[in-house]
Amino acid sequence: MITVQDVIDQLEEGVMLDSSTVDGLMYGDSKDEIKGITVSFMPSIDVIKKNVDLKANLLITHEALFYQHHSNQALEKNNSLVEEKKSIIEQTNLAIYRNHDAIHRYQPDGITHGLIAELDWQQYVNEQESAYSILHIPNSTLAKVATQVKQKLGINYLRFVGNKDMKCEKIAVLVGYRGNGPTTIPLLEKVDLVIYGEGPEWETPEFVWDASQLGVPKGLIQLGHAESEDPGMKWLANQLKDRFPSIPVTFLPTVRRFQLI
Amino acid sequence: MITVQDVIDQLEEGVMLDSSTVDGLMYGDSKDEIKGITVSFMPSIDVIKKNVDLKANLLITHEALFYQHHSNQALEKNNSLVEEKKSIIEQTNLAIYRNHDAIHRYQPDGITHGLIAELDWQQYVNEQESAYSILHIPNSTLAKVATQVKQKLGINYLRFVGNKDMKCEKIAVLVGYRGNGPTTIPLLEKVDLVIYGEGPEWETPEFVWDASQLGVPKGLIQLGHAESEDPGMKWLANQLKDRFPSIPVTFLPTVRRFQLI
Repeated sequence: MITVQDVIDQLEEGVMLDSSTVDGLMYGDSKDEIKGITVSFMPSIDVIKKNVDLKANLLITHEALFYQHHSNQALEKNNSLVEEKKSIIEQTNLAIYRNHDAIHRYQPDGITHGLIAELDWQQYVNEQESAYSILHIPNSTLAKVATQVKQKLGINYLRFVGNKDMKCEKIAVLVGYRGNGPTTIPLLEKVDLVIYGEGPEWETPEFVWDASQLGVPKGLIQLGHAESEDPGMKWLANQLKDRFPSIPVTFLPTVRRFQLI
Repeated sequence: MITVQDVIDQLEEGVMLDSSTVDGLMYGDSKDEIKGITVSFMPSIDVIKKNVDLKANLLITHEALFYQHHSNQALEKNNSLVEEKKSIIEQTNLAIYRNHDAIHRYQPDGITHGLIAELDWQQYVNEQESAYSILHIPNSTLAKVATQVKQKLGINYLRFVGNKDMKCEKIAVLVGYRGNGPTTIPLLEKVDLVIYGEGPEWETPEFVWDASQLGVPKGLIQLGHAESEDPGMKWLANQLKDRFPSIPVTFLPTVRRFQLI
């Protein structure tokens, strides 16, 4: 019999989590027998409901249930939608385990690794750090890279800053909110292009803009947070399939939230 | 003779700034005589250089010079682009005054007021709070609102979450980074739609998504940070024109940073 705790032990293997970690079992009992596992970036209501059809009783998710990175009691207590979501979860008897900090501490970072694997760029990795990887892709331009990224990740449009014909052979790849200035601006001293999930618009985009005003070709591509982290959770689902071959494991990709008008 | 200090006194009139304010004179001498004023959302290099052609010697800007809301010495010290930008500013002899906190404390908030005025929606304002205004626009849908916003602000595309045909008569308008969850999620209990500059993707967009999964029609429109705050700085430029009729005052709109591919 494989229990929820057996899967948790596997997820946390070799990782030291701080006392302030956001990871952990949010719902369910660690002694329950696992019948099926789903893995997703976001534990949204559609994802939770799919577990019923799939007869899965453990959802492993990267982000939080209630729209905040850290639990926010003030927000949760006074919100009718939060109440309704809690009641849906309780009705499903689903165990929900958040794996955010652990997967980012795998070596290499499982989320960054999953993105680079999905892009089929593993052969270009030149340097691996905890918050980013640096790739050398020969004969690339911003437009060529963006077109490849769109196709490999199934994204309809990408937002970018910079000249689309600029050469960008040295590329830093970052996931999630690592598009913030303190992380990406120093990197732009040594790379041509940063690719990230999201980040504040007044930081890195302004740096890239000013660089272009000085004739220094720099670029950024903003993937979207889910778009940058979904592949890492897909990679995790495949790891769990290998580790627990007797249990059905299903990766549930994030349906695109943003539309254009 | 009108000095830099006279203009600063006007900008700060009736406002109490904290000791931690980001506002203040970043470059220049408060005793200098003003020859011309420019006003912009962002003190980017193209904006700084335009002051030379316009013979303006005071730039009033909303955001910071060096890609961080608060000054970040570690980032500034080791960056060749920052060094080059500083040297360009010194060569122009331009005075640069940051007006971020003060304009947000005008009553009503000058940036929110400027956006609503640019949208020609003043007659719909139902409630004015420090961080947002609530408007009642009869017979509106998300698509109708988005189309009006694009046209009035000169935006080519807008990102939104929700059903574009949903009714949205009650709308909260927020500028800048006020698209964060703690600000907008409680508002969505009483309005149909939030319109904001930017905010983390895992907060309000996920709340709106989950609401739609429960058949509760909610929506959000993300304008972009500059797109949401440029009109407020344009409004400020017009206020200064009225107050100092002898001085040429020019509003410099932000050139769009992000392109789509």
